[in-house]
Amino acid sequence: MQDEALSEAARAFRGRSVVSANDFTRADILAVLEAAGAFEGRAGGPGSTPQEPRLPGRVLGLLFFEPSTRTRLSFESAMLRLGGSVLGFADARVSSFSKGETLNDTIRVVAGYCDAIVLRHPNEGSARLAAEVSTIPVINGGDGSNQHPTQTLLDLYTIKKAMGRLDDLRVGFMGDLRYGRTVHSLAAALLHFDVKLSFIGPPSLKLPPDLRLEIEEAGRLGIEVESLDEVEDLDVLYITRIQKERFPDPVEYERVRASYRVDREALLPLGPELKIMHPLPRVNEVAPDVDTLPGAIYFQQTRNGVTVRMALLDLILGGGA
Amino acid sequence: MQDEALSEAARAFRGRSVVSANDFTRADILAVLEAAGAFEGRAGGPGSTPQEPRLPGRVLGLLFFEPSTRTRLSFESAMLRLGGSVLGFADARVSSFSKGETLNDTIRVVAGYCDAIVLRHPNEGSARLAAEVSTIPVINGGDGSNQHPTQTLLDLYTIKKAMGRLDDLRVGFMGDLRYGRTVHSLAAALLHFDVKLSFIGPPSLKLPPDLRLEIEEAGRLGIEVESLDEVEDLDVLYITRIQKERFPDPVEYERVRASYRVDREALLPLGPELKIMHPLPRVNEVAPDVDTLPGAIYFQQTRNGVTVRMALLDLILGGGA
Amino acid sequence: MQDEALSEAARAFRGRSVVSANDFTRADILAVLEAAGAFEGRAGGPGSTPQEPRLPGRVLGLLFFEPSTRTRLSFESAMLRLGGSVLGFADARVSSFSKGETLNDTIRVVAGYCDAIVLRHPNEGSARLAAEVSTIPVINGGDGSNQHPTQTLLDLYTIKKAMGRLDDLRVGFMGDLRYGRTVHSLAAALLHFDVKLSFIGPPSLKLPPDLRLEIEEAGRLGIEVESLDEVEDLDVLYITRIQKERFPDPVEYERVRASYRVDREALLPLGPELKIMHPLPRVNEVAPDVDTLPGAIYFQQTRNGVTVRMALLDLILGGGA
Repeated sequence: MQDEALSEAARAFRGRSVVSANDFTRADILAVLEAAGAFEGRAGGPGSTPQEPRLPGRVLGLLFFEPSTRTRLSFESAMLRLGGSVLGFADARVSSFSKGETLNDTIRVVAGYCDAIVLRHPNEGSARLAAEVSTIPVINGGDGSNQHPTQTLLDLYTIKKAMGRLDDLRVGFMGDLRYGRTVHSLAAALLHFDVKLSFIGPPSLKLPPDLRLEIEEAGRLGIEVESLDEVEDLDVLYITRIQKERFPDPVEYERVRASYRVDREALLPLGPELKIMHPLPRVNEVAPDVDTLPGAIYFQQTRNGVTVRMALLDLILGGGA
Repeated sequence: MQDEALSEAARAFRGRSVVSANDFTRADILAVLEAAGAFEGRAGGPGSTPQEPRLPGRVLGLLFFEPSTRTRLSFESAMLRLGGSVLGFADARVSSFSKGETLNDTIRVVAGYCDAIVLRHPNEGSARLAAEVSTIPVINGGDGSNQHPTQTLLDLYTIKKAMGRLDDLRVGFMGDLRYGRTVHSLAAALLHFDVKLSFIGPPSLKLPPDLRLEIEEAGRLGIEVESLDEVEDLDVLYITRIQKERFPDPVEYERVRASYRVDREALLPLGPELKIMHPLPRVNEVAPDVDTLPGAIYFQQTRNGVTVRMALLDLILGGGA
Repeated sequence: MQDEALSEAARAFRGRSVVSANDFTRADILAVLEAAGAFEGRAGGPGSTPQEPRLPGRVLGLLFFEPSTRTRLSFESAMLRLGGSVLGFADARVSSFSKGETLNDTIRVVAGYCDAIVLRHPNEGSARLAAEVSTIPVINGGDGSNQHPTQTLLDLYTIKKAMGRLDDLRVGFMGDLRYGRTVHSLAAALLHFDVKLSFIGPPSLKLPPDLRLEIEEAGRLGIEVESLDEVEDLDVLYITRIQKERFPDPVEYERVRASYRVDREALLPLGPELKIMHPLPRVNEVAPDVDTLPGAIYFQQTRNGVTVRMALLDLILGGGA
């Protein structure tokens, strides 16, 4: 892709809401990933160089109607690293929602207090609604089991950083394929690239039919199996948590959960080159003995969340590319 | 009023606590409103210019013993926009109050951690008490149904901005006239100006007798009626929420609430010039179809909260006027 | 102690975790106390001069799994005063711990978002564990009834500031000698100095045997009594709260609590020079009439928490001495 197309895509983020990974073009994705590259080593931690302030006097509003550690704290970190500040709430109980205010009103009010809003809300479609009524950009930090577009961007960045490319890849998704929003968003976004997508999961948690069809029609569908034993030739294995609340029967949940727990031994047949990803938090679907495998990049993945969110906030609120 | 009187009033805010709107002189009010004017367009949002840091290294403590979105976040925004920072809690449960500490002790402790305190507390008089024991300025962010002086300042600023003046105005208050602290504070503050104040509300939620008497003796009392139908010739209609907890009988509550819900049609007879204000959050006392009326200024009103609080913090903590 | 030894000790804090006061050498303690002296009058409040930013772009993560006002807010204040910023949570319920994540994972994730972590956690040893898995420094903000090393540093700083020295002192500890982590840490740290330590408390809340033995073998043990009446010749009296949850029998708790409540009258026999300390919050173990005694320095003590934590953060994250 040409530099001009990328620059144009980067400029187009200025003042824009980010609601769904499905809204991203290939150029959008590459523009964010390239911008993120410039913040490598500027996101804190040992050996990093503090970033010069790029968003001084700017304020990011964080409205979290559901608990979150990763998404909220990495957005906060990203904004603070850019020299901006944050406000908001981490818990709907301490907001006026306890007084019965509509989401519409809260968004319009908070839009008067800051320069962009990150919203996490249990209702699907809430971010789209918020973006429509807001006078400032709204970034979806997760709306129910629907979308989590910045997670997708950091997942793509992590794959690109680990593999050196986004094309010519074989990616397997394992776990809750039905409700896992990270799976849906990432799989759809990967369709912009030359990939083969495989799926490992229990019959009760299969991929939604429309997404499956989209992948199939794009000619990107690999195998669909119930067990990791049946898989070979993957570059990346993306594991997700199977949530108890999806199962009416606790016994069935325990059975499924046990089947989709991976440890070092289970991963050995897939070879030492395999990259293992997980959006975290994990409960026990990835055993601790996996952590020291060279391909276990889930902690790097979460760390990349700061870098990618710095890039996105900078594109949306700053001078841009 | 002369410029010198205003400058003197502005200087007098330096290091001062703000406990009650009743403590304000006419000069105090005009000084804050003039200072706020200088921060117009510096409070963020689309098209605004970031404010140069005026309070770098200064820390505002926010002690919220009751939930709040608007007051807390707009104070945070104001302090951050001025280049300062904030700390505190949004919820008494995460503070040591769960260990039985007195408010006295908490204030004295937190006064060692910051340069000014914003306190919201359910007990009437708590802010006065806090101001007495604190070594740093205390700003009342709402003490029960008693006072909320910065709300009054932003209400006055909103009226002045919308009408171009604070004298020669007819202001109507509708809803909970008995317990609504915003009504009490604003009505009392407006007595410094040449206004006519009218009141629309149910018999069970009438204005407190002493405030009514004060208004009457000042020769500012307009009409007192039960229905908006009986009203004409208003410049500003200030609507407040009727709270369920004020009614022992839920049926009576529903009846009253329904009577004091306004929509576009109910407001038409009052003419297109009428300004409609509400301290928010609204539950459903103002119908969404009112939002697009040119006189519906409640979202501007909440936004003005940042501008006015920037001015107040700057007067209290900065070099002042 | 020579200046070079102090400088070396100061430099050694760079990038280091602070898990237990027992890890401190005499030089460590003196290095922090000297560094803190340089921040006197820079920690905010009336008459203070804002500190020039020393940690711009640096982010401190605050992970509080238990409620706290003092420790959390004074760390926040210290970091903000140094020009840095903070993120984190004040309440485990709003973090992903509600999703069953291990402390190990949370620490490794958050270490990707900031430059140092302050951890408060109910489990003894949690801070040691966190320091082991973290790629960035971890500061123990209290792990159950085990350790609270920065409290010890501020206590030592307070004694030194009030008395002008740490050697040649008679210090009495009163209250919960068994479970009070501040007592354990401070007593152990004072063994680096020429002190005589006395203990006043009920039989059921006596000093742990190993700590008592350590003090005795160091030749620093003064008297051990049940009542303040039996004490004389103290320079400092360090009072702690007796916690209800330590007593199976509420009647016994009330009896003990009443016996270990001090007021002005109870302190008179110990003379006007006595310094009275308390880590706060107090419930009613120190009567309000004690507050105005010249020796009542517990509010200064809590205020010193900012100064000392500024010094510590500066040593750990900054260029250091």
